[in-house]
Amino acid sequence: MNITQSLEWRYACKKFDTTKSVSNEKLNTITSAFNLTATSFGLQPIKLIVIKNKSLREKLVEHSFEQKQVANASHLLVICIHDYFTLDDIDAYFDLEKEVRGTSEKILEPYREELKNIFKNKSTIEKQKSAINQAYIALGNLMTVCAIEQIDSCPMEGFNAQKYDEILGLRTKNLKSVLLLPIGYRADDDFMQTLEKVRKPLSETIITI
Amino acid sequence: MNITQSLEWRYACKKFDTTKSVSNEKLNTITSAFNLTATSFGLQPIKLIVIKNKSLREKLVEHSFEQKQVANASHLLVICIHDYFTLDDIDAYFDLEKEVRGTSEKILEPYREELKNIFKNKSTIEKQKSAINQAYIALGNLMTVCAIEQIDSCPMEGFNAQKYDEILGLRTKNLKSVLLLPIGYRADDDFMQTLEKVRKPLSETIITI
Repeated sequence: MNITQSLEWRYACKKFDTTKSVSNEKLNTITSAFNLTATSFGLQPIKLIVIKNKSLREKLVEHSFEQKQVANASHLLVICIHDYFTLDDIDAYFDLEKEVRGTSEKILEPYREELKNIFKNKSTIEKQKSAINQAYIALGNLMTVCAIEQIDSCPMEGFNAQKYDEILGLRTKNLKSVLLLPIGYRADDDFMQTLEKVRKPLSETIITI
Repeated sequence: MNITQSLEWRYACKKFDTTKSVSNEKLNTITSAFNLTATSFGLQPIKLIVIKNKSLREKLVEHSFEQKQVANASHLLVICIHDYFTLDDIDAYFDLEKEVRGTSEKILEPYREELKNIFKNKSTIEKQKSAINQAYIALGNLMTVCAIEQIDSCPMEGFNAQKYDEILGLRTKNLKSVLLLPIGYRADDDFMQTLEKVRKPLSETIITI
């Protein structure tokens, strides 16, 4: 399949085959892809929780508007943002850059200070808003990567994030859940897969200048 | 290249080869991919502007914090949201679904009403915020699709959106620019391509339960 065919093949899977599991090799591809997601200034204010534990996922169904794919999928991916983002996180980024690239502090210093100045004036809400945007980039990336790997997924914005944070113990980890992506393999009888994709014609969504 | 290698190959290209152009075939892949982006309730409150016109792009550089890749790339993609989103847009979606899938109004009607009820209580700001989230999903999708197609790109959040809207005449089209993605082919001397990618170790960005 080429990329267009893979994206055509993708749909929001509502019923997963409970007998099929995503292999560790494929999971490694997905987690690597998450980590390679482009983020604003490269700061990676996001984290991915991969939940295999079925009884835990069954407990989460009621906090997901009873959407059973949370439990019936092979794994549940929870994309989180860092609740608080401080100037220490910016230092950590530049320290990592120094380590990875061997860049000297003399070269990094002005960038480090500039970025700190940008973030110093941002409120917690603004920083969270920006982190949420990055979570959506990761979602877009992961859905496409899954499609290429012929793994089904179902993007979900609608769930009780507070309950998720409580059950998964995210507060003590400085995390907030933002988006869900159950992944696995479509059940033969998920009727959604047989439906024609509903998309506006390209003439309505693309303007060429 | 497998998908991990493609994502490793991708970087935020700062200097494009001005002699190389993205082919129409590749552009079709990109615009199709944009149109196939998953959006909340399938409503597609986003639009893509593809700008080839170089003198227009040169005019936009000063409203992009002087970032020259806007002009030096092969094409500039501008991801926009619909400024106003009304109940008519929801009707248009269900009318399209009826046309594409041949679903009867009897089956669609409760969904149509439910979605209208959800949107009736949303403010313009809330609707725009949700549309912006979808624009970020499209960005994540497009960056990955470009990487697979070995097309370079540079995601940009920082630009003067009001000036863009004015110059591109977006207000009369009910659109607002949100994100930029210049695309093309890296210049041989873009030193950024030689730098090691800076990413946290997976142990810091992935939690497995």
